[in-house]
Formats: sequence, C-alpha cells, structure tokens
Amino acid sequence: MEAQKLQQKVQHLVEKNWFSHSILVLILINAVLLGMETSATLMQNFGAVILLADKILLSVFVLELLLRIFAYRLHFFKDPWSLFDFAVVAIALMPATGQFSVLRALRVLRVLRLLSIVPSMRRVVSALLGSLPGLGSIAMVLVLIYYVFAVIATKLFGSAFPEWFGSLGASFYTLFQVMTLESWSMGISRPVMEQYPYAWAFFVPFILIATFTMLNLFIAIIVNTMQTFTDQEHAAERAEDKKAEQAEQQLLHQQLTQIRQELQELKQLLKQ
Amino acid sequence: MEAQKLQQKVQHLVEKNWFSHSILVLILINAVLLGMETSATLMQNFGAVILLADKILLSVFVLELLLRIFAYRLHFFKDPWSLFDFAVVAIALMPATGQFSVLRALRVLRVLRLLSIVPSMRRVVSALLGSLPGLGSIAMVLVLIYYVFAVIATKLFGSAFPEWFGSLGASFYTLFQVMTLESWSMGISRPVMEQYPYAWAFFVPFILIATFTMLNLFIAIIVNTMQTFTDQEHAAERAEDKKAEQAEQQLLHQQLTQIRQELQELKQLLKQ
Amino acid sequence: MEAQKLQQKVQHLVEKNWFSHSILVLILINAVLLGMETSATLMQNFGAVILLADKILLSVFVLELLLRIFAYRLHFFKDPWSLFDFAVVAIALMPATGQFSVLRALRVLRVLRLLSIVPSMRRVVSALLGSLPGLGSIAMVLVLIYYVFAVIATKLFGSAFPEWFGSLGASFYTLFQVMTLESWSMGISRPVMEQYPYAWAFFVPFILIATFTMLNLFIAIIVNTMQTFTDQEHAAERAEDKKAEQAEQQLLHQQLTQIRQELQELKQLLKQ
Amino acid sequence: MEAQKLQQKVQHLVEKNWFSHSILVLILINAVLLGMETSATLMQNFGAVILLADKILLSVFVLELLLRIFAYRLHFFKDPWSLFDFAVVAIALMPATGQFSVLRALRVLRVLRLLSIVPSMRRVVSALLGSLPGLGSIAMVLVLIYYVFAVIATKLFGSAFPEWFGSLGASFYTLFQVMTLESWSMGISRPVMEQYPYAWAFFVPFILIATFTMLNLFIAIIVNTMQTFTDQEHAAERAEDKKAEQAEQQLLHQQLTQIRQELQELKQLLKQ
Repeated sequence: MEAQKLQQKVQHLVEKNWFSHSILVLILINAVLLGMETSATLMQNFGAVILLADKILLSVFVLELLLRIFAYRLHFFKDPWSLFDFAVVAIALMPATGQFSVLRALRVLRVLRLLSIVPSMRRVVSALLGSLPGLGSIAMVLVLIYYVFAVIATKLFGSAFPEWFGSLGASFYTLFQVMTLESWSMGISRPVMEQYPYAWAFFVPFILIATFTMLNLFIAIIVNTMQTFTDQEHAAERAEDKKAEQAEQQLLHQQLTQIRQELQELKQLLKQ
Repeated sequence: MEAQKLQQKVQHLVEKNWFSHSILVLILINAVLLGMETSATLMQNFGAVILLADKILLSVFVLELLLRIFAYRLHFFKDPWSLFDFAVVAIALMPATGQFSVLRALRVLRVLRLLSIVPSMRRVVSALLGSLPGLGSIAMVLVLIYYVFAVIATKLFGSAFPEWFGSLGASFYTLFQVMTLESWSMGISRPVMEQYPYAWAFFVPFILIATFTMLNLFIAIIVNTMQTFTDQEHAAERAEDKKAEQAEQQLLHQQLTQIRQELQELKQLLKQ
Repeated sequence: MEAQKLQQKVQHLVEKNWFSHSILVLILINAVLLGMETSATLMQNFGAVILLADKILLSVFVLELLLRIFAYRLHFFKDPWSLFDFAVVAIALMPATGQFSVLRALRVLRVLRLLSIVPSMRRVVSALLGSLPGLGSIAMVLVLIYYVFAVIATKLFGSAFPEWFGSLGASFYTLFQVMTLESWSMGISRPVMEQYPYAWAFFVPFILIATFTMLNLFIAIIVNTMQTFTDQEHAAERAEDKKAEQAEQQLLHQQLTQIRQELQELKQLLKQ
Repeated sequence: MEAQKLQQKVQHLVEKNWFSHSILVLILINAVLLGMETSATLMQNFGAVILLADKILLSVFVLELLLRIFAYRLHFFKDPWSLFDFAVVAIALMPATGQFSVLRALRVLRVLRLLSIVPSMRRVVSALLGSLPGLGSIAMVLVLIYYVFAVIATKLFGSAFPEWFGSLGASFYTLFQVMTLESWSMGISRPVMEQYPYAWAFFVPFILIATFTMLNLFIAIIVNTMQTFTDQEHAAERAEDKKAEQAEQQLLHQQLTQIRQELQELKQLLKQ
C-alpha cells in the first residue's frame, strides 16, 4: 500500500509541467557545457568547474530516469521515447577508456533528449520516422542495386584501385560518394577510365539508375505527405457535405409525406 | 494646426505615384553607379563624377526618408518595410573607416530598396519570408542535429584536423560544407579516414540524416505552398456550389409549400 | 491573279505531310553529317563528300524557307517558330572567318529545327517556355540578390583574388559556380577565408539565400504545372456534375408543376 | 497425352509457393557467396567450397528455368520478367575468357532475380519503368540539346582539350559530368576559359538549359505519380457519391409518382 502510494506520488511529480520544464532547462545548460568542453582555452581556465557541473547534471538526469522507472515500472521500457532517453544517458555512464574512448564524444548525444522533451520537435521526429516504413520496398530495391554494382566494381576495378574498390565495403563507400555526385568524374571515374577505357559504361548507368531510384524515393515521400494532409481535410469536408445533404433530404421527405397524408384525408372526405 | 496641415501635405506627396516612381528610377541609377565603382578603369577616369553622383543620390534618399518619417511619425517605425529602407540607407551614413571599412562594401545594400518599392518583388519577398515560420520545428531539429554532430566532430577529429574541426565554429562550417555535398568525400572524409578508418560511420550517417531532414524541410514548403493555392480556389468553388444548391432547395420548398396550401384550400372546399 | 494562285499552290505544297516529313528526314541526315564532321578520321577519308552533302542539304533548307516565305509572306515573320527556323538556317549562310569563326561551330544549331518540326517536341518546348513568364518576379529578385552580392564580393575580395572576383563579371561567374555548390568551399571559400577569416559570413548566407530562392522558383514551377493539370480535369468534372444535377432538378420541377396543375383541375372540379 | 499431363504437373510445381520461396532463399545464399568471392582472404581459404556452391546453385537455377520453359513453352518467352530471369542466368553460362572476362563480374546480375521474385520489389520496378514512357518527349528534347552542345563543344574545344572534348563521345561524357555539376567550373570550365575567355557563354547556358529541362522531367514524373494516386481515390469517391445521389433521387421520384397517382384517384372520385 505504502509503496503504491509513493509510486503514484512520484508519477504525479514527473508528470508535472514544471518538472519537465526544469529538465528541459538543465538539458540546455548541459548542451552549452558540452559545447564549452570543446574549447581548449575554456577547459584550461574553467575545466574543473565545467566537468563538475557536467557530473552534477548527469546525476540529476540519472535521478530523473530512476524516478520515471519507479513511477511507470515496466511501462517505462515499452515507450520508445523513454528507451531513447535511457540509452543516451546510459552512454555517459559507460567506462570511456581504451578502445571505447569514442564514447566520451558520444556523451553529447544526451542533448538529443530535447527531441523527446519538446513536443513540437517530438512531432517532427515522429513525422520523419513515420514516412520511413512506406519507403521499404524502394529502399530494398536501392540496396539490391547497390550490392550488385558494388560486387561488380570490386571484381572489375578492385585490383587496380584498392583504395576505392579494394573490398565490398570500400566499393559501397565509393558508390555512395558517386551517388552524391561528389568528385565522381574528375576524382573517380576519369582516373579509372585511364586504365579501363569503358569504365564510363559502369559509372554513367549507375548514376542514372541510382539517382532515378532516389528521385522516386523522394517523390514517394512527397506524395505520401501531401496525400495525408489533403485527405484529412478532404474527409472532414465530405462528412460535412453529407450531413447537410441528409438534413435537407429528410426535410423534403417530411414535406412529401405530409402531402400524401393530406391527400389521404381528402380522399376520406370525398368518400364520405 | 499648421504643422498638422504640413504633415498631411507631405503625406499626400510621398504617397503620389510619381514620387515612388522617381525614387525607383534613382535607385536604379544608383545601382548602376555602385556597379561602376567596382571598375578600376571607370573610377580612374570618372571617379570624381561617380562619387559626387552617389553622394547626391544618397542625400535624396535621406531627404525622402526624413519626409516619410515626418509624414507618418511613429507609424513609420512600425512598418517593417520602412525600417528596412531606413537600415540600408543608414549603413551609407556610418563612418566606414578602420575596422568598419567593410561597411563601404555594404553600401550596395541600398539597391535592395527595390524589393520594398516594386510591388511584385515585395510580394515575392513576403511569400518567401511567409513560408519560414511554418518551418520552425524542423529547423530546430536540424540545428540540434548540427550541434550534436559538431560537438562530436570537434572532440573526435579536432586535434588531428584543426583546420576543419579545430573549434565548434570550424566544425559547423565544415559540416555545412559536407551537407552541401561539396568535396565531402575526396576533400574531407577520405583524408580523415586515413587517420580514423571508421570516420565513414560519422560522415555517411550525418549526410543521410541531414539531407533527409533538409528534404523534409523542402517538402514542408512545397506542401504548404500548394495547400495555400489549392485551398483558396477550392473554398471559392465550395461556397459557389453551396449557394447554388441552397437557391435550388429554396425553390423546391416554395413549390412544396404551395402544393400544401392548395391541398388545404381543396379540403376547405370539400368541407363546405 | 497568277501570282496569287502560285502562292496558294506553294502554300498547299509546304503544308503537305510528306513535305514536312521529308524535311524532318533531311534534318536527321544533316544531324548525322554534322556529327561526322567532328571526327578527324572520317573527315580525312570522306571530308569532300560530307561537306558536299552538307552544302546540298543547306541549299534544300534555304529553298524550303524561301518557299514558306513566298507562301505566307509577312505572316511567316510573325510566327516565332518560323523566325527560329529562319535564324538557325541564316547562321549557316553567314561568313565564318576571322573573329566569326565560332559561327562555323554554331551551324549545328540547324539540328534544333527538329524542335519546331516534330509536334511532340514542339509541345514540350512550348510548355517549358510557357512556365517562364510566371517566374518573372522571383527571377527579378534573384538577379537583384546576385547583383548586390557580386558588387560586395568585387569590393571586398577583388584586389586579393582578381581571378575570381576581379570584376563584376568575374564575380557573377564565381557566384554562379558557388550557387551550383561546385567547389564552393574547398575551391573558393576556404582560400578566401585564409586571407579574410570572416568570409564565411559572406558565402554561407549567399548560399542559403540563393538556394532558398531557387527552391522557391522550382516550387513555383511545380505548383503551376500541377495546378494546370488538375484544374483542367477538375473543371471538366464540375461541368459534368452540374449538368447532371440541372437535368435532375428540371425533372423534379416538371413533376411538381404537373402536380400543381392537377390540383388546379381538382379545384375546378370541386368548384363546379 | 502423357507429355501434356507432365507439362501440367510441372506447371503446378513451379507455381507452388514453396517452390518460389526456395528459389528466393537460394538466390539470397548465392548473393552472399558472390559477395564472398570478392574477398581475397575468404577465397584463399574457402575458394574451392565457394566456387563449388556457386556452381551447384547455378545448376539449380538452370534446372528451374528449364522446368519453367517446359511448363509454359512459348508463353515463357512472352513474359518480360521471365526473359529477364533467362538473360541473367544465361550470362553465367557464357564463356568468360579473353575479351569477355568482364562477363565473370556480371554474374552477380543473377542476384537481380530478386526483383522479379519478390512481389513488392516487382511492383516498385514496374512503377519505375512505368513512369518512363510519359517522359519520352522531354527525353528526346534533352538528347537533342545534348547532341547540339556536344557537336559545338567538340568543334570549339576539341583541338585544345582532346581529353575532354576530343571526340563526340568524350564531349557527351564531359557534358554529362557538367550537368551533374561535378567540378564543372574549377575542373572544366575555368581551364577552358584560360584559353577561350568566352567559354562561360557555352557552359553557363548549357547548365541552365540542361538543368531546367531535367527539372521539368522530374516535375513531369512527380505530377504523373501524384495524378495517378489522387485520381484512383477520387474516382472511387465520385462513384460512391453518384450512387448515393441516384438512390435518393429514385426515392423522391417514387414519392412524387405516388402523389400523382393519388391525385388521379381523387379526380376519379370527384368525377363520379
């Protein structure tokens, strides 16, 4: 009983507006601190203070997460946004030594909690992610095209240009660069063509196919988005129109029914 | 009384068509003069004339602004277009010496007054600016993504590549370059990968996330614009349709009411 | 009389299908010949034949134009497509020596007559050109922005980087390159920043403003095109709907009118 | 009779779900194997196994194709998807020696059979190809523009820059590069301008015309796609609306007809 009451109290607390607003402000302060950590001058003069403040803020975030876990129990781990918060805070708690020193740099991911705490940004991210599933089939086709071209490139140009096409991974990276059109000709294709004069028959079709498929990916997103917007509005209008028409038709039928009743009365009168 | 009359007279003057047309012509002449100032040959031969003409035109613009301020008083400063005119003329009056010598180059901003004085250009600029507020949330998400990636880049690559990632500012600039896809691979990412072989795991996701978010920004603008155009037209059509239908229904009801009246009369006749 | 009859006969001739089809085939042959002229090997072996064939074809085109001018008189010069045909053939007749030797290369423009002679290509070009007038205002804003930035760039960076910003023309070209995002950072902006560390405050805003304006230019084209397509279809549907509804309403009114007539008859019967 | 029965049996077999699912799995395994073939380390250790597995899988694919050809006879060769399957398997059977060694690399095209066997990918490819015919006219205009500019470039710059504009083919490739905006200025146009100062008058118009035409190609695809989506939905809605309205009108007419019948009865009563 006591525990349940406490749980409810904590739940009320973490759902208070001032609570999330405070966390929001602390994240912003933390963002500034993490930005200051990148300046050698600032770190030399105020390094101790900045790192201490960072540690205090991290403790607050850990405490907040513990409160929310205590309040929602398992439900906490069913909400993807909560899991996201959990993950970006957890990164900061991992040991960042040796080969994991890259984790130190990833601590700034904590700032991404803004995405989950500011409603308007949360909506944008939901919309962005929501447009992804509809792209599944085109993305699969794109991956397949990539794979086929990467294997061909590795086999054809791998031995002569190991840096660009030495392995499947290298070919994937280079083809991604080619698809973004960055230095594809002067940087990649022309040097390759000096050794394999017909290399253009590989690069030009790849660019045409890849950008055309990408274009269709974009169009799919545009059409979906527009569809959604237009449909909602359109459906509301149609419902309204239908309602107005039905009301009108009911009126008509009432009048006609009354006319027929009166005709019946007349008939009765005449038959008398 | 006298002052008020004068104010009204001035207001009438500055609202005359020939007044703004004259200013328009003077701005165009000034634009040509400012262009001629960039030519060393022209300045050597006609420098004195060009600078004198520029000074005279500037005086005219100052006089025009003073007239408008006298005419509208505080209202002048409430109109953003007037403030814009005021600012670009003010730049020319500031001392452009020492560290402010860049202001001399900014004098050409005066030509931008065309944007406020030509109605069709004014409409375009209003439309461009008008599409910005709706982009607020996506822009915030984009800034946040930039900030996080800039901090990570500074921490990871800052010491090895100080020119590109030495400070938060440098990282911001480099990431902007990467997002425009300019030399992102041959110029930035490949050199970085020579020292940090896994750097592609930073650049490729950044490009995918940044361009995908940018794409959604563009789509938001496209959908908004199309929505606005379509809606206006659609609303007009619907109003027209509704009106036609109501007129028709009124006619029907009149007829039905008359039929019922006649039926009543028949009943009266029969009852007699 | 005789002349008029001849004119009509010629007019009938040039409007015949086989006539324009023959010209079409000759243009295609001419296109192939002009392509062959670029090959040194072919010119060495068959140069005389190719040049002779080209001359014969040119004579045919001149004759065709003369026939059309004779047939339509002044009307010929009022049709922009005819003027286009006239211009591209005229280029081939001009002396291409000395400083006009570039005209020899422009002879291939003759092939563009395909655009005016193939109906489907003619429609595409008309559509492309038709979308231009609606872009007038945005294009003017873009030109103005270009001019202002070009003057500023010439004044600020002209002396230090004469190749890129030495004159207004050079600045225009370089800013066009920057707007296409080609080597804007590694090639232009970073070298400039080495001398003027704040040059990014010029280039980044220019890119943002120029691409945003370009984007709105594109969106304007997209919205216009879509509008046109949708509207035509929509208008047809609405007209059909309206017609069906009016037919239905007329039927209803006829019935109601007949009911009222019968009621009148009833009244007459009763009054007797 | 026997042969026909066998044919039907085989047809039932190849149309079974488990049959195509098995083939799908084998293609995926083959894709992984073909990827492994690009790794020198893997080939050194497991080369024999990988090549053997590849041969076995190829035999299975050949057998599958023979079964399908036996089942459908000539109909097999009328289905473009079947022809596609046939072609990509046939490549693997051709001798890949001497000048045809490139065919060895093309064996991976076999993996593209996924496009024909996975329904959702098949639909994507059909949609992509389906949007092509509508682009015919614009594509023809684009090809014509390319041809004219390529001939001009070859004639003007061919002798001075043989690598870029030495032949029609080289010019085509370089102009494609320029259209993708890759190094068009720093890499191509500026070096050319050093020899021919007015070369910008060739490159800038080409970029403007080519990208504007490409843009219209994209817009045509977008508008077509959107049109198709919207139309289907819209047509369904209209059909539904029309049906509802007709039902309502029938009801009205029934009522009115009954009223008139009753009036006739009344008249009869009165006339008696």
